[in-house]
Amino acid sequence: MSSLTLAHLGPQGTYSQLAARAYSAVFLRSRGLAAKYRDCPSIAQTLLSAALGEADLAIVPVENSTEGGIAVTLDTLWEQGNLQIQQELVLPILHALYSEAPRLSDITQVYSHPQALGQCQKWLSQNLPQATAVAVNSTTEALGLIRGNSGAAAIASPQAGLWSPVPLLARNINDYPDNCTRFWVVGAEPSLRGARTALAFSALRNVPGALVKPLQVLAEREINLSRIESRPTKRSLGEYLFFMDLEISQDNPLFQEALAALKPYTDALKLFGSYDVLSLQNQDLSQWAAPEKG
Amino acid sequence: MSSLTLAHLGPQGTYSQLAARAYSAVFLRSRGLAAKYRDCPSIAQTLLSAALGEADLAIVPVENSTEGGIAVTLDTLWEQGNLQIQQELVLPILHALYSEAPRLSDITQVYSHPQALGQCQKWLSQNLPQATAVAVNSTTEALGLIRGNSGAAAIASPQAGLWSPVPLLARNINDYPDNCTRFWVVGAEPSLRGARTALAFSALRNVPGALVKPLQVLAEREINLSRIESRPTKRSLGEYLFFMDLEISQDNPLFQEALAALKPYTDALKLFGSYDVLSLQNQDLSQWAAPEKG
Repeated sequence: MSSLTLAHLGPQGTYSQLAARAYSAVFLRSRGLAAKYRDCPSIAQTLLSAALGEADLAIVPVENSTEGGIAVTLDTLWEQGNLQIQQELVLPILHALYSEAPRLSDITQVYSHPQALGQCQKWLSQNLPQATAVAVNSTTEALGLIRGNSGAAAIASPQAGLWSPVPLLARNINDYPDNCTRFWVVGAEPSLRGARTALAFSALRNVPGALVKPLQVLAEREINLSRIESRPTKRSLGEYLFFMDLEISQDNPLFQEALAALKPYTDALKLFGSYDVLSLQNQDLSQWAAPEKG
Repeated sequence: MSSLTLAHLGPQGTYSQLAARAYSAVFLRSRGLAAKYRDCPSIAQTLLSAALGEADLAIVPVENSTEGGIAVTLDTLWEQGNLQIQQELVLPILHALYSEAPRLSDITQVYSHPQALGQCQKWLSQNLPQATAVAVNSTTEALGLIRGNSGAAAIASPQAGLWSPVPLLARNINDYPDNCTRFWVVGAEPSLRGARTALAFSALRNVPGALVKPLQVLAEREINLSRIESRPTKRSLGEYLFFMDLEISQDNPLFQEALAALKPYTDALKLFGSYDVLSLQNQDLSQWAAPEKG
């Protein structure tokens, strides 16, 4: 059985790993492919791993429904310029609190990834008002750090308990019940067909209508935007990149026509591929949490 | 001498405190007003402090030229709904590295605010590849945490050394030399005059042209946007708030006409005031770092 290497933010037990396992179960097995997993220490390095060919695909979060865009994912895709989105997965993110503390009131520090801390901030201020938040690289790292420390807690997925002996104290502590995250599966292969197309372009400051012209090009052709996000170019305050998800495939002639019409109104423009979206929002992620059998 | 209370992210030595001191020196002294400072443990609580009347004004970061928008500032302004921007200050952000380590190679952990870690990530990966980043609530907290730990370093402003005995090991470690941050001075007072006006509105998903219509309303009137940023409504993936800075004052009749024309194309719409921008990018912040004399 031939296999593909999937890079994801590690170590074992992160939401990104769950997304990678779900991708393998749904998309690779049916094609007779096995998955190998490559743990990466950061989201940027996960993407680099695919850009450098160390992995076939990278699975990275791109947007959370509560906290918004994952800036490092967009920034790294733009810098690399050669990665294409093959598929989008939407995962439900239902955080759990882990701790060796006998009672919630004994907890003085809560460790987690900054996104997870952000997604639970109302719950934390109501239930652990005495605790300070400490941001670390991943939910799994947080679980590791609190072992043997009965004054500390970690926020991680309910499935992360499989990889840790620390007791689960509370479930569904995310502030919004429909909390979910979009993950992109990206690789070096061209990706020309799919319901959505991601692109980004730079626009210069103080050009009246710098953004309205490109949007008019799309609106005149009834091409809908499912998302727009601005990121700084980092060179100078007030210069932006605009990332857009369009509800059209690159292989649609209407898209090619729109792209030609966009060119005069944009500076650098990069295409990140066309992709379909699979929502797993009503799925139990536990089915993909346990290690796969060879 | 009567005084105003200025809330900012604390404790002593943060960039937000420098912004508050600069505001006092430039705007309050000339009006015969003294400043009292109120340290707050988070940006959200800084804004709440002004919303609840515990402080007259809150000084908060809203956007950095390298890392982009400060999501909690926009989200809290929207949730509060009653705070108005009185002034914008742009500060140069030239990070320094502090440590009791004899050599850079002895450093295994780097503490700072997540924004500062993000603004120095290339420098860190080149100069401290062995070190892991640990995000904490403020640059000042980072400086406090590393005292007595010769394996740790903190990123803070070059002026923060005034408040700490830890030696400064390296200056200007920010990845982009023009790194700067926009700060907003907000309060409960109406703010109707100024070169720029901030507003936000919600737009629903899958409405073709949901964003293009509002932008057309502005473009037809030659009202320029200096910035647009999307934030999730948090209720459901794909529903957004759009925050915009327009280059026009609310007391301009053209703005009032545009506002009326925007209404049919927006759901909830909130105005956050008109304000002028003072750039301190070429100033030495040290002049405002030392405690003020009564």
